[in-house]
Order: sequence, then structure tokens, then C-alpha cells
Amino acid sequence: MVNYPNGKKHTTKDLVTKQEKHSKIEYGKRGMSFEDAIDKTNQYYITRQIAVIHKKPTPVQIVKVDYPMRSKAVIKEAYFKTPSTTDYNGIYSGKHIDFEAKETHNKTSFPLQNIHHHQIEHMQQVDQQGGICFLLIQFTHWEEVYLLLLEHLMFYWNRYMSGGRKSIALTEIKKDGILIPYQYQPRLDYLAALNMKDESED
Amino acid sequence: MVNYPNGKKHTTKDLVTKQEKHSKIEYGKRGMSFEDAIDKTNQYYITRQIAVIHKKPTPVQIVKVDYPMRSKAVIKEAYFKTPSTTDYNGIYSGKHIDFEAKETHNKTSFPLQNIHHHQIEHMQQVDQQGGICFLLIQFTHWEEVYLLLLEHLMFYWNRYMSGGRKSIALTEIKKDGILIPYQYQPRLDYLAALNMKDESED
Repeated sequence: MVNYPNGKKHTTKDLVTKQEKHSKIEYGKRGMSFEDAIDKTNQYYITRQIAVIHKKPTPVQIVKVDYPMRSKAVIKEAYFKTPSTTDYNGIYSGKHIDFEAKETHNKTSFPLQNIHHHQIEHMQQVDQQGGICFLLIQFTHWEEVYLLLLEHLMFYWNRYMSGGRKSIALTEIKKDGILIPYQYQPRLDYLAALNMKDESED
Repeated sequence: MVNYPNGKKHTTKDLVTKQEKHSKIEYGKRGMSFEDAIDKTNQYYITRQIAVIHKKPTPVQIVKVDYPMRSKAVIKEAYFKTPSTTDYNGIYSGKHIDFEAKETHNKTSFPLQNIHHHQIEHMQQVDQQGGICFLLIQFTHWEEVYLLLLEHLMFYWNRYMSGGRKSIALTEIKKDGILIPYQYQPRLDYLAALNMKDESED
């Protein structure tokens, strides 16, 4: 046991990866996390040649690496970095797709503190270049996932930035967003939701 | 000193990150690695609102994380994973851009073993969706960087796969590729090279 400079003892939780923490959440006995459902959907899209969308790796600042002889390199000290972009991007029928997926345990609203300033900035930059940006928001308590386009997100973000409420009400998300039902295959057909959005706006 | 199961002692190279290893290579006293030059170029493109292209984080398999009280999480054991896609992607004037950057110390050819099968597969998928895919190849000895479009890369890749030579000759790259000169700003204007390619093919 080593004491840290602040005099506190440190606790160790071994073998708990971010992935495993996510996987603890189950949806209607389907035993799949939100992130897993998106990954499975993306695999489905790639296999069917519908789209090529991937999650970016978790950004990590590597500080110390061991190179044991005749074994592969072992990272011995690293830290999680704040992502400078969104987690997902790719291409769908010639269109650049860029989105962030967030879940909340809140029952009535989505707290905007979940989104980083630089992620908003990134999505605005992508939007300026002609990309399609959105948020996938899961209300874990209701097992409901919504797609919210950047233009709508910006309305609520600007309200927040100008001193208004710090969250988007679920009623607002129901109004502006598109519900993506959990289904067998693909698990979360967010591209279908995107197409519905296009049609409803024509 | 701990012996590994194979009886060999292991050596430890502390504080050497992938980044630092790359940075050892210098170009004409500019003290910048190939990767740094691309990153700087991408920053330039973002700042000037020319394009939004980022390097993906290095994929890492996290095995063990410590959570010291009142400090941020420390990754104590992790391994480098083989990337399943290319390193760079983004959007440029509505077009999806996807590329891989590779350097070789070879003077006369680029060994195709530098490219993974799944990276080729990934670029073909992106190409099918209408994205623009290419390779940036640096011949470190000559301080020369070339852009080679996927269609050309595929010719040499297929030659390799069908039992032909395992590399692309520099003369072939000079013929099919576009030289990207190192310059002050942006460091490596690969989008200009891409535009030249478009014009030369019209």
C-alpha cells in the first residue's frame, strides 16, 4: 500500500476496463450496452455494404512502455485523455457521418454537461464542410434512444450558453429527435432514423 | 530484474513513447517527424476551414486500471492493438477523406508488408461508399512524400497478392503518385496534391 502525496491511501480496482464497466448495463435481458449495440449496428452496416462507420479508439496518453525481450510491448503507465472529436465517424452513401453517443440515467432530461465544448466545436466544423452531425442519446431508464441532429442540439446548447437551462428536456427531445427502437438486426438502426428525418423535413 | 518464462531477462525502456520514437527523425533541421508534419497540416486545414481531418488515437487494449483516490485513473497494463482501419479520416468540401501514412527507410521501393490486409479492405469499403482513399508514403532517405490513390495502390497490391513483387518501386510511385513538397505552411499540403491529381485526370 502506497500513500499518495495528499496522504490518502489509494485503492486499486484491477481488471476493470472501460468496456467492462459499460457492459454491466443490460437492456431487457439482451445483455448489451449502448456502446455494444452501436458497434453491432456498425458491423451490420459494413457487412451489408450500407455504410462504413467506426468508433474511434479511446484516446490514451502513453507515458511508460516496457519492451520485454521476445514479448510484445507492455504499456505500464498511461492516462485517459479528453477526446478532441466525437467518438464515431464514417461514410454513408457518399455522405460524411459524425456523431457522439451519450447515455443518461436521468428520467426527464439530458444534461448538456455530458457534451464537451470542443465536441460541439468539432461538429460545427464538420457541419461547415457538409458533413451530417448528430447525437445519439440513450435514456437508460426508459431503454429509449433518440437521434438529435446538430441543428437542434445547437438550439439547446446556445440556450445553455446564454444562461438558460443546462439540459434538454425529454419532451423537447421527443419533439425534435427521432426515436430509434432497439430491434434484433440491426440493433439500433440510426441511419434509418436519419432517413426518416430527411423525409419528414422535405 | 525479473526473468520471463522463456528464461530471458527483460529490458526496460522507460519513458519512451511511440510519439518520442517518431520524433527522432528530423527533416532538414526542421526537427519534425512525418506524423508531426501531417498533424500540423491538419491543424492548418482546420484553422483555415479548409478541411476537418484528424488522426485516430492509437488503439490500445486496456487490461488494468488503478483508481487512486482523488487522482485520475492510471492505466497500469495495456497493449497496442492492430488498427482495424486507417489512421486518418475526415471531411474536405463535402468529400469523405480516408488515408494511411507510412514511411520507409528503403531507398528504391515501398514494401507492401507495411500495409495490413484489413486496411486495404477498409479502404475498399470506403471507396465503395464514395470516399476518397489514398496512401501518403514518405521515403525518409530522400525526404520525399508521395500521395498514391487507392486505385493505383490496388494495382500493386493485386500484383503482390497474385505472387508478383512485394513492393512498389519508387519509379512506379513517381509515375502514379504525386510528390508533396515539404514547405513552411502547411507542412505537407496533401489536399493540394489531391486536387492536382483530379486536374491531371480530367
